[in-house]
Amino acid sequence: MRGAVMYGPGDVRVEEYEEPRIVEPTDAVIRVSAACVCGSDLWPYRGIGIEEAGWPARMGHEYVGIVEDVGRDVTTITPGQFVVGSFWATDNTCEICRAGFQSACVQRQGMSAAQAERLRVPLADGTLIATPDIPSDDLVPNLLAASDVLGTGWFAAVAAEAGPGKTVAVVGDGAVGLLAVLAATQLGAERVIAMSRHESRQRLAREYGATDIVEARGDAGVDAIKELTDGLGAHSVVEAVGTQESMMQAIHATRAGGNVGFVGVTHDVAIPGMDLFWSLVGVRGGPAPVRRFLPELIDMIWTRQIEPGKVFDLELPLDRAADGYRAMDQRDAIKVLLRP
Amino acid sequence: MRGAVMYGPGDVRVEEYEEPRIVEPTDAVIRVSAACVCGSDLWPYRGIGIEEAGWPARMGHEYVGIVEDVGRDVTTITPGQFVVGSFWATDNTCEICRAGFQSACVQRQGMSAAQAERLRVPLADGTLIATPDIPSDDLVPNLLAASDVLGTGWFAAVAAEAGPGKTVAVVGDGAVGLLAVLAATQLGAERVIAMSRHESRQRLAREYGATDIVEARGDAGVDAIKELTDGLGAHSVVEAVGTQESMMQAIHATRAGGNVGFVGVTHDVAIPGMDLFWSLVGVRGGPAPVRRFLPELIDMIWTRQIEPGKVFDLELPLDRAADGYRAMDQRDAIKVLLRP
Repeated sequence: MRGAVMYGPGDVRVEEYEEPRIVEPTDAVIRVSAACVCGSDLWPYRGIGIEEAGWPARMGHEYVGIVEDVGRDVTTITPGQFVVGSFWATDNTCEICRAGFQSACVQRQGMSAAQAERLRVPLADGTLIATPDIPSDDLVPNLLAASDVLGTGWFAAVAAEAGPGKTVAVVGDGAVGLLAVLAATQLGAERVIAMSRHESRQRLAREYGATDIVEARGDAGVDAIKELTDGLGAHSVVEAVGTQESMMQAIHATRAGGNVGFVGVTHDVAIPGMDLFWSLVGVRGGPAPVRRFLPELIDMIWTRQIEPGKVFDLELPLDRAADGYRAMDQRDAIKVLLRP
Repeated sequence: MRGAVMYGPGDVRVEEYEEPRIVEPTDAVIRVSAACVCGSDLWPYRGIGIEEAGWPARMGHEYVGIVEDVGRDVTTITPGQFVVGSFWATDNTCEICRAGFQSACVQRQGMSAAQAERLRVPLADGTLIATPDIPSDDLVPNLLAASDVLGTGWFAAVAAEAGPGKTVAVVGDGAVGLLAVLAATQLGAERVIAMSRHESRQRLAREYGATDIVEARGDAGVDAIKELTDGLGAHSVVEAVGTQESMMQAIHATRAGGNVGFVGVTHDVAIPGMDLFWSLVGVRGGPAPVRRFLPELIDMIWTRQIEPGKVFDLELPLDRAADGYRAMDQRDAIKVLLRP
């Protein structure tokens, strides 16, 4: 079986490795219909945040596919079903899961090796959700987006408390940022400000409901948001980049009493206590508990209320995964879909 | 008229200065019945966070007293009333105030010079609340506590989302921490863990409703909280110290999806992005919008449901303010009440 393996920064290869199989009685094995390259995959691709011992690494944690086999303890998922999972395998029954923070499930296992022909999914009952039927081809990218980027953007918008009457600003115009725009719109925000200086991304942000575009960044970006909000700042700001500048831009662009939802992986970020203190802004983020939102998101996709799959602007066969990484690294593509 | 002035670190003097008078038509002047020394006053007392140009500084921002005079635009406060204010003068009408974040009011003015015989209070209608009548003497310390420490502890508990079914831990056993224990209890928390290694403070924490005491600090303190919470951490943690250690203790002692409310003034604190990211903990803090809670707190005090004034374990005449600062600095007193 073939799958993508990263051997070091910038070095992604698709090669043969052993077929996954049921190991635990709670596992499932799926035939991957589509997988993709995540913004967070670019961190190790750029040599950041991975130990030498982490190489080589089997890549990919976003996936949809057809169930081929399940362990004897799996009760809700059966072979032949089309399923969507998320990037953590979770029991969905522990106290943390029940509180809606499945990404910190006491049994969580990080998913990897989804950029492959087949994938073992632990804790299948708590991780996978079957669609009502086998989806038509055009729904597949949308369902795949739910697996991570949509769920992550949605979590960020919820963490930022986007909702009716609110002005929401989104820092970051990658797939997650764009889908946070969609989430904020769907959650009923009155005004959604996308911060982007790329025309094609601005266009998609508009399609997803952005009412305003701000091209300025950093302090100038903060000033621009304040100008649009009577000097107060946005009620809700999504941070979907993960740098010091973007985090401070998000905090400073939020009004007192407002909220920042951050989902950019915050390598080398430190939030000065006094900035946070005087801002009176609430901050919550982290790895999104996508599982919390999946049933609702799948339903919205299935009934064609939303089309998150538009963020995939490049589709490649799995064998060309390296080209996909390169395109995203160089920002030639927003997000790359891989077909095994 | 006499009032306390800080001339430099460790140097507090009570001296004559000019009587305050109505300057703006929205002002009130009150005769101070009682004022006190705040934990935050200890920062400049220790030479931290104040510029050379800040000296000499008239001190004090917690006060209750009798209205002596009001400006011509003041409509809700009249001479002769006993009033409680908070440490920001605020209009209580702007969008930020209406959202409950009066401490970031667009017109806010920081209060000072309350450790004095008389005090000018700007924006009197939005800042002061009159009690139903002139209080009996024993109520005065309780009402004074509402002016800052109780309101601040209450805000911290609310920001940490303390409530029914929750386990709340409080880092810091100063007056604010102790009153956060009281707040968490009043807000219906199931379990309230006070982190303290001082017997007298532990005793007051118990009186205020603490169900558990943890003496350990730092990582050991985090471990102790986890042991008490099935390894998950508390739902809500109040940070009422303001050091790097206490902030990280608070974040790490909170379960995923839980909340930290911080009110310690965070000098030299920086929150590492990756710690916050992986914690999935929400963090909100800052200068407490005491005004939001004052009506409710005054009512609870007036009807003798709570006795926050117990945190005053030393009462001195205003002229001995210097002794009061010294006692708090050396932790000989939890909180010092000054009588002009």
